Amino acid sequence: MHTRRIGILTGGGDAPGLNAVIRAVVKHGAGQKGWEVVGSEDAFNGFLDDPPRLLNLTPRTCRGLLHRGGTILGTTNKSDPFAWRDPDGAARDRSAELAERIRAEGIEGLIVVGGDGTQRIGWRLMRERGVPVVGVPKTIDNDLAYTDYTFGFWSAVEVATEALDRLHTTAEAHDRVMLLEVMGRDAGWIALHAGIAGGADCIAIPEIPYDPDRFVDKILERRRRNRLFTVMVVAEGAYPREGTPEPGRVAHGRGHIAAGGAARLLARLLAERIDVETRVTVLGHLQRGGGPVPFDRVLATRFGVAAVDLVDRDRWGELVRLDHHRIDSVPLAEVAEAQHFVDPDGQLVAAARGVGIEFGG
Amino acid sequence: MHTRRIGILTGGGDAPGLNAVIRAVVKHGAGQKGWEVVGSEDAFNGFLDDPPRLLNLTPRTCRGLLHRGGTILGTTNKSDPFAWRDPDGAARDRSAELAERIRAEGIEGLIVVGGDGTQRIGWRLMRERGVPVVGVPKTIDNDLAYTDYTFGFWSAVEVATEALDRLHTTAEAHDRVMLLEVMGRDAGWIALHAGIAGGADCIAIPEIPYDPDRFVDKILERRRRNRLFTVMVVAEGAYPREGTPEPGRVAHGRGHIAAGGAARLLARLLAERIDVETRVTVLGHLQRGGGPVPFDRVLATRFGVAAVDLVDRDRWGELVRLDHHRIDSVPLAEVAEAQHFVDPDGQLVAAARGVGIEFGG
Amino acid sequence: MHTRRIGILTGGGDAPGLNAVIRAVVKHGAGQKGWEVVGSEDAFNGFLDDPPRLLNLTPRTCRGLLHRGGTILGTTNKSDPFAWRDPDGAARDRSAELAERIRAEGIEGLIVVGGDGTQRIGWRLMRERGVPVVGVPKTIDNDLAYTDYTFGFWSAVEVATEALDRLHTTAEAHDRVMLLEVMGRDAGWIALHAGIAGGADCIAIPEIPYDPDRFVDKILERRRRNRLFTVMVVAEGAYPREGTPEPGRVAHGRGHIAAGGAARLLARLLAERIDVETRVTVLGHLQRGGGPVPFDRVLATRFGVAAVDLVDRDRWGELVRLDHHRIDSVPLAEVAEAQHFVDPDGQLVAAARGVGIEFGG
Amino acid sequence: MHTRRIGILTGGGDAPGLNAVIRAVVKHGAGQKGWEVVGSEDAFNGFLDDPPRLLNLTPRTCRGLLHRGGTILGTTNKSDPFAWRDPDGAARDRSAELAERIRAEGIEGLIVVGGDGTQRIGWRLMRERGVPVVGVPKTIDNDLAYTDYTFGFWSAVEVATEALDRLHTTAEAHDRVMLLEVMGRDAGWIALHAGIAGGADCIAIPEIPYDPDRFVDKILERRRRNRLFTVMVVAEGAYPREGTPEPGRVAHGRGHIAAGGAARLLARLLAERIDVETRVTVLGHLQRGGGPVPFDRVLATRFGVAAVDLVDRDRWGELVRLDHHRIDSVPLAEVAEAQHFVDPDGQLVAAARGVGIEFGG
Repeated sequence: MHTRRIGILTGGGDAPGLNAVIRAVVKHGAGQKGWEVVGSEDAFNGFLDDPPRLLNLTPRTCRGLLHRGGTILGTTNKSDPFAWRDPDGAARDRSAELAERIRAEGIEGLIVVGGDGTQRIGWRLMRERGVPVVGVPKTIDNDLAYTDYTFGFWSAVEVATEALDRLHTTAEAHDRVMLLEVMGRDAGWIALHAGIAGGADCIAIPEIPYDPDRFVDKILERRRRNRLFTVMVVAEGAYPREGTPEPGRVAHGRGHIAAGGAARLLARLLAERIDVETRVTVLGHLQRGGGPVPFDRVLATRFGVAAVDLVDRDRWGELVRLDHHRIDSVPLAEVAEAQHFVDPDGQLVAAARGVGIEFGG
Repeated sequence: MHTRRIGILTGGGDAPGLNAVIRAVVKHGAGQKGWEVVGSEDAFNGFLDDPPRLLNLTPRTCRGLLHRGGTILGTTNKSDPFAWRDPDGAARDRSAELAERIRAEGIEGLIVVGGDGTQRIGWRLMRERGVPVVGVPKTIDNDLAYTDYTFGFWSAVEVATEALDRLHTTAEAHDRVMLLEVMGRDAGWIALHAGIAGGADCIAIPEIPYDPDRFVDKILERRRRNRLFTVMVVAEGAYPREGTPEPGRVAHGRGHIAAGGAARLLARLLAERIDVETRVTVLGHLQRGGGPVPFDRVLATRFGVAAVDLVDRDRWGELVRLDHHRIDSVPLAEVAEAQHFVDPDGQLVAAARGVGIEFGG
Repeated sequence: MHTRRIGILTGGGDAPGLNAVIRAVVKHGAGQKGWEVVGSEDAFNGFLDDPPRLLNLTPRTCRGLLHRGGTILGTTNKSDPFAWRDPDGAARDRSAELAERIRAEGIEGLIVVGGDGTQRIGWRLMRERGVPVVGVPKTIDNDLAYTDYTFGFWSAVEVATEALDRLHTTAEAHDRVMLLEVMGRDAGWIALHAGIAGGADCIAIPEIPYDPDRFVDKILERRRRNRLFTVMVVAEGAYPREGTPEPGRVAHGRGHIAAGGAARLLARLLAERIDVETRVTVLGHLQRGGGPVPFDRVLATRFGVAAVDLVDRDRWGELVRLDHHRIDSVPLAEVAEAQHFVDPDGQLVAAARGVGIEFGG
Repeated sequence: MHTRRIGILTGGGDAPGLNAVIRAVVKHGAGQKGWEVVGSEDAFNGFLDDPPRLLNLTPRTCRGLLHRGGTILGTTNKSDPFAWRDPDGAARDRSAELAERIRAEGIEGLIVVGGDGTQRIGWRLMRERGVPVVGVPKTIDNDLAYTDYTFGFWSAVEVATEALDRLHTTAEAHDRVMLLEVMGRDAGWIALHAGIAGGADCIAIPEIPYDPDRFVDKILERRRRNRLFTVMVVAEGAYPREGTPEPGRVAHGRGHIAAGGAARLLARLLAERIDVETRVTVLGHLQRGGGPVPFDRVLATRFGVAAVDLVDRDRWGELVRLDHHRIDSVPLAEVAEAQHFVDPDGQLVAAARGVGIEFGG
């Protein structure tokens, strides 16, 4: 009998749980169904490089992977076969070549683990080049509309919450405003959850452009109660509302800011208004590293098993997801641009306000 | 204007997140709505003891509570006012007296945080004695049918998963079967989640009475692949299927077993069948202690805020719950005995089997 | 030029940091000095088994080892070539054969990582069979007279301290005596350090046979101050002083007790004397598993580098050790039986008593 | 009989373990010796403010303090009674007034917990103003010549090591140089220990001005072995050696750099030399916050008990310290400016080099 041969790759920024997905795909696909599972290094690049960088993945190679952060396959944002960048900067379409190489390897189809960008490439590869694809969603920001959770999110929240716990103790010892910048360029889910879990006094998220004066009021109100420190969580995409006088200019809404920029801007806006000592901490890559928490290990394992089951039933063109405790799938064609934002009037923000958290708007 | 005065108590075994509920109730009820919040120590006992043991809870008394394990109010299983036990062992009904004392304290109603038993008492107190009650569910086992999650569950899973990570490294160094007994007298949720997250080879849960020979087969199959160690998670309520010859007797299904008994029984059953070195670790109270993980902190905070909001709208007789990301409530009258078990044929067990986990049945 | 070829093995119970020693030996010996480093699996067994189980260790095979618990070489207590046990139970001397096999492999000498027993075997192998040996001491109990610390000790103390932190929160919520049994058959170092670090109320160690009535007095004194819970750390080798009436007999001093036995005996002795609810937790293998804390990673790395440096200078027959921040070595011939016990009248016990800890004697 | 009345304060930056010292002083001094212990908030400011901010410390107020980060007394660097800063910026000597206020409170002497600066103030207060003082040294940097360790150091190393573990996993997934800046303005102890414990490839410390080209060589050498990522630890006081061309200028040795500056400078120097993607993470206050590790809890407890014992024997003018497992003391008069630096030719740096770590010099 013919042995099925399947490819797997991980694309985009890394997230705790990628290795757990790989392990589940290999244990279920190779270990139980007897398939050959081939990993492409650094997303699609493993196929496109000369020589190709492909790994035969067996249960043996996946030992100890479950709790390891990162991804043994590597990952990259620079891997779009439809707009391949040569060293000289010129772009060209290598998608046909990619499809050719995948077929030449005897690979029937791909399990693509990645974020929106990677999934779009996978879907084009299927539609335009005939390479069957099953998708596993990945975003540490948890901002996808079609799945309850993505793996990596609660791991990032744990890192951010532990940081808040630490900052609290040192903030209390002094008389300070501590600002912690966490991930979330478009959506404030990490900031919101970590802020509630870490007992923040203020949270700034992209969905609620803030008025710095409301944060100032919060700081002053705390001082009146002899609480001389304030702990703030700032999503990297948070920004002041339009019309806010900024140092040297006036805010015009959202704009791209470098890492740490959102927290430092808020720190400056506070320091312009009141006499206050601020300290900025930028978590950055600490949120992506480290092993996944149990929630993410379970979810990643379920996603990996479900992806194999889709392939097993030849249901290509689907993306796995979690829907109220159940894993099922949605068509890849339908998921583009389905970002999910924090609802400023929603229940979770209301709960945060209910324990006294100020959002600045 | 008259200031509302509300009581709060915590009953049953403790769970990480109890303090976070108390904090949220106090911050929202006392801090924002201006109520007086009175805590009764050791469930209903604080009202019934002489002198009463009641605490005035203010935002100030709740500082630093969010991440602290345990409950500042204390908790106990020995607090049923309808069947009060005197020191001489005689039982009597003190529920009327309790209602009287609550009213004498000027307390309008209670927020009762507790498991099934405590909620039943609360509901009788409301129905039979006219004391208004709002409930907040609590069980570390996560085995309630009407709520997606209870706080404390993922914290317990984290403790169990970390223990599995530790046992893995020491198991690999030797040649052994490590058995880890975790909580779960009736339902195997903790064992199932921790087993998947911790990469267990075998899981024994009450919902799937096990055949020890299937575990033996798993151990032998691993040995053939030169995997000389095996890691097993055993829920405290796990038991061999009927007809299994046990040391000195024959299994007759589920029965009450002391702490550690389920794992030790399985260890004996294995040792009777093959030459194997077993080591039993019983997590016991380590699972209940310690601070809550972020998931549980967020959930507990939302439950606390929601309970206050129910009181605020005079919706007594309700129990808060989580239903697919939303907090709402169900009538206390309807929730009795709504236990939720692992489905042996369900998706989660299938995913576990998909990565090669053996359930023994 | 001739390439040096060195063997390495790990013997006895495992301890966090074993992999860090292996990694350092390989990075320094193979990576920098260009030696071949051969690992023998399961202590000396790797040489004696047919076929031999030997691993060529290179910096590449040691990637990611630094923070991993356990030992990639495996370890065992059942590996004495001077008293080899055949499956039929007969003992015979295979030490000459072992020396022969080591030489046949072209291995010049061994780096032996292990406890007293393993070091004694190493030393006999050198003296009686002419196999050059350098030793790296290993005991999680930290009870060696000639070195300030052994790796693994602070990792075990961390596990025990975290357990105490957890038990504290759940003890406070109820009204209980929590007993935590930790490692320490002969010496109470882990119990003493964890007890101080974890804020225990009582500590029982082998060096101070306890009078249960003194623990009872402590419990009662705490109750008078309305501290209804008591947390006790019990070394597995702790025992009541002579003459203590035990259930059904009278204590006659130290004796061998099964895992959990020391804590359970103390729990019974307490329950005989006062009305008290006790809960016993036995940490067992959780203390040996898991990654090493930074202290142990640094120490293990230094030990590994130092062992290679001894070999490099042909200073066979030495054992590395830590002496007041400095690594040096002592002759293997001199170290036998140099156990180091807690001094009941020493400074550390006095400090513990200074914060109110009761030792029962 | 007259009850002794003693003051305690904490000065300078905070360090994990401050609360453990306070707890030990109170448990030993107040709980066992029956003294009154008065805490001054924010170092000496508690005495000097109007009204004074003083706390009566009892064992009851110290419950739960052992594992809590920060200091319940608060701390500050802006508290020099000899050079008091008024809001208008003018300096004046308030030391006589301070001594007067201490005496007026009936306080016999002070236990001063703090770094060099705070100890100097304490010593002047004793010598010039006749206020008896006992010192407890505190520096998270562990750079004091007269004591083996200060509390807080291993806690900071743990935070830094965990960060390295996290960065490793995310570095491996991509192709990057990750730079982690840790504390250590004058001395590189934290960077050195965390770098060894966290498996860093390069360490930059103030004691070894670095040549960026040597780091470049290390990165290139790793690439040749297909190790595409490099992890570097940078002490905040690390700087390039004289003569190094910097962006826009030439290095002239050590200089004051803002938080994150040392790592960012090194990142720029690397990017000028080779095509490399760098990521800078600045741990900052995360290192000071959070609970102390067991090592620091034990040491802080011993320091606190020892300080009380010095007072008890009227040995004022002494500073406690750890000297090869023993706690004793040195005269405050002798300890000024006794900083202890990493020896570039010493054993620890050699061990780090032994596992392949590059120091850049």
